[in-house]
Amino acid sequence: MFRYSVPIKNIMGTPTGRSIATLPKSFKSLIYSKHDVDNCSEVLSVKEYVPKENLKESIVLRTLAFPINPSDINQLQGVYPSIPEKTLDFSTDEPAAVAGNEGLFEVIHVPTKASDKFKVGDWVIPLKSNQGTWTDYKAITNPSDLIKVNGLDLLSAATVSVNGCTAYQLVNNYIKWDSTGSNNEWIIQNAGTSGVSKLVTQIAKARGIKTLSVIRDRDNFDEVAQELENKYGATKVISETMNNDKTFGKQDLPKILGPNGTIKLALNSVGGKSSSSIARKLEKNALMLTYGGMSKQPVSLPTSLYIFKGLTSKGYWITENTKKNPSEKVETVEGFIKLYQEGHIETPNLSRDFNHIEWDVSNDKDILEKVKEGINAKGKKQIVLLKWK
Amino acid sequence: MFRYSVPIKNIMGTPTGRSIATLPKSFKSLIYSKHDVDNCSEVLSVKEYVPKENLKESIVLRTLAFPINPSDINQLQGVYPSIPEKTLDFSTDEPAAVAGNEGLFEVIHVPTKASDKFKVGDWVIPLKSNQGTWTDYKAITNPSDLIKVNGLDLLSAATVSVNGCTAYQLVNNYIKWDSTGSNNEWIIQNAGTSGVSKLVTQIAKARGIKTLSVIRDRDNFDEVAQELENKYGATKVISETMNNDKTFGKQDLPKILGPNGTIKLALNSVGGKSSSSIARKLEKNALMLTYGGMSKQPVSLPTSLYIFKGLTSKGYWITENTKKNPSEKVETVEGFIKLYQEGHIETPNLSRDFNHIEWDVSNDKDILEKVKEGINAKGKKQIVLLKWK
Repeated sequence: MFRYSVPIKNIMGTPTGRSIATLPKSFKSLIYSKHDVDNCSEVLSVKEYVPKENLKESIVLRTLAFPINPSDINQLQGVYPSIPEKTLDFSTDEPAAVAGNEGLFEVIHVPTKASDKFKVGDWVIPLKSNQGTWTDYKAITNPSDLIKVNGLDLLSAATVSVNGCTAYQLVNNYIKWDSTGSNNEWIIQNAGTSGVSKLVTQIAKARGIKTLSVIRDRDNFDEVAQELENKYGATKVISETMNNDKTFGKQDLPKILGPNGTIKLALNSVGGKSSSSIARKLEKNALMLTYGGMSKQPVSLPTSLYIFKGLTSKGYWITENTKKNPSEKVETVEGFIKLYQEGHIETPNLSRDFNHIEWDVSNDKDILEKVKEGINAKGKKQIVLLKWK
Repeated sequence: MFRYSVPIKNIMGTPTGRSIATLPKSFKSLIYSKHDVDNCSEVLSVKEYVPKENLKESIVLRTLAFPINPSDINQLQGVYPSIPEKTLDFSTDEPAAVAGNEGLFEVIHVPTKASDKFKVGDWVIPLKSNQGTWTDYKAITNPSDLIKVNGLDLLSAATVSVNGCTAYQLVNNYIKWDSTGSNNEWIIQNAGTSGVSKLVTQIAKARGIKTLSVIRDRDNFDEVAQELENKYGATKVISETMNNDKTFGKQDLPKILGPNGTIKLALNSVGGKSSSSIARKLEKNALMLTYGGMSKQPVSLPTSLYIFKGLTSKGYWITENTKKNPSEKVETVEGFIKLYQEGHIETPNLSRDFNHIEWDVSNDKDILEKVKEGINAKGKKQIVLLKWK
């Protein structure tokens, strides 16, 4: 049924330099003009329109894949602090914007002025958020708005901008790690089964940094823990019950860390009790970075950790980091690709790691309904894969 | 009854250079060997002993005053993370330490080797914590362990090491303030009536930084608010009810701050709801420093403040700062004295701001009981004033 009969890991960007014969006359995008916090999928519609850009003079892209991220949904709900400007570029009566902040694109046309930077067949992602990725085609006038991602598999490339870059920067940009990897330095993180956490684990391992991953209690705890340890390289996986148990912290934790083991960084995407329990395990003058709040509980930290243990608690947001420092995002993607090509990053598995939605470009009358279902679905990450003839 | 018949503000260190005739044969100190979290005053005893130091070769000090700080009490309880080493220097069977971390001393003897740095009559404080200040005399062998505080009144000098330096560093060491004072920059702080908060208010005002002080709701709110505004220079005082009210934050706060007003620093010594409410009022990428936790509630901050508003939450502890950077402590005291002499700091009032205990050195058989009472008393800060013939 689906075109990916070869393993996803073997599908990669292959710049050919050959332009496709004809450029599209119109683009088709999932757009919105309003927000609805309770029924956000209802604000979406499909719109076909003639792009405002001169395509001959633009880098023209066709879309290969885009994930449905929580931030995309929060934008539709109107509760996300970063949103695109709405315009009349899409032949609508009311100003509208194309949904989506992340996606993987293939270059299908390069104007002469950009031919030193991009080739037809290159795989690219937008540098910044708010560019509108839930679309079949895109036209880019400024080459600096794109980052090349040749060398990644399709699923890694389609998710590198948020999860990949988040994990890479969390590990690399805040702590001055012992560069020899021989100092028994640790990261502790909660939500240890999340996409970002698995990437953190692998990126840390490549640098010789150990990871203590906390996961929720579950019936198949041993199975999940073993997968995280054996497949992704987590040094040790513990449950939230262990994380919250003070006796565990005093008696078992030192044995896990071993001689001179210190936890220098805590990565929190849960909040509540889980966040205070990982913070308590940090060494003196350490850092906790909060990049998510799945429990919807605040980050609650004892005064004594701040005053007597010198804890610093900060937030992390890839969107804001990229706004402040776009070139760092480019370096981050390059660093991620390098790790991937050196074999440090596990290739995602479409059926294990994602629920996928097919956008058959030649027969797409049901795409709006499919994406709406994807927005409202629970469980694994939703990804839309575009099927081109 | 009490020797301070002249106003405290007129009593200051006056280096005379004249050594007193005879050095003491013995010292008398309040010491402890054990800790008791429930009845910490019971671990104290008075001990007279021959000092181990060669007094002729030491800087010899007599004590003028020492406050009873929460950290002193927590040390006796055994719950403070910084404690002095216990020794056999005090003619005890078990190792013991002199209580107290802060105090004001008068130099009564200077050895030749230190005569370029200190003169008899100088007022001095210990550079570091854990030196044992609940004593009648002290002998110091290393001149670098003392900071001169001539130029302050007795009460300011006796409390500059903790409250004065804390307030000075909180205001000055973390934010790059607009040096012209014309940028409408604010500090928000809770516990606005505390000793540190009043000093923060005055130090900030001297720099052109505005302060929004939150105080607990009380029957005489207007009276207290007016005193903080008129006497100490708080720009605006609000109640905890206002602080916690979201409508107040949206509608009233912008009017209080005025055009382009931004809150760049939050100072938290309360925790709990009060801390999250002051943090919410900060501008983007701002800082909250926690230096106390009077509510005994954790510092609880919404995930969104961390991720989307770029909040950094850190602790502040003068003891640790001084360990890391002793010269900064000296500069801080000098900076504080300068502000005081320029008239920016209100002189404390003994009866309004303190409960005082008299230690009559010539008749001191009841001093242990008096200090125990001071430890167990509630309300205003306790200070022990030594009466010398």
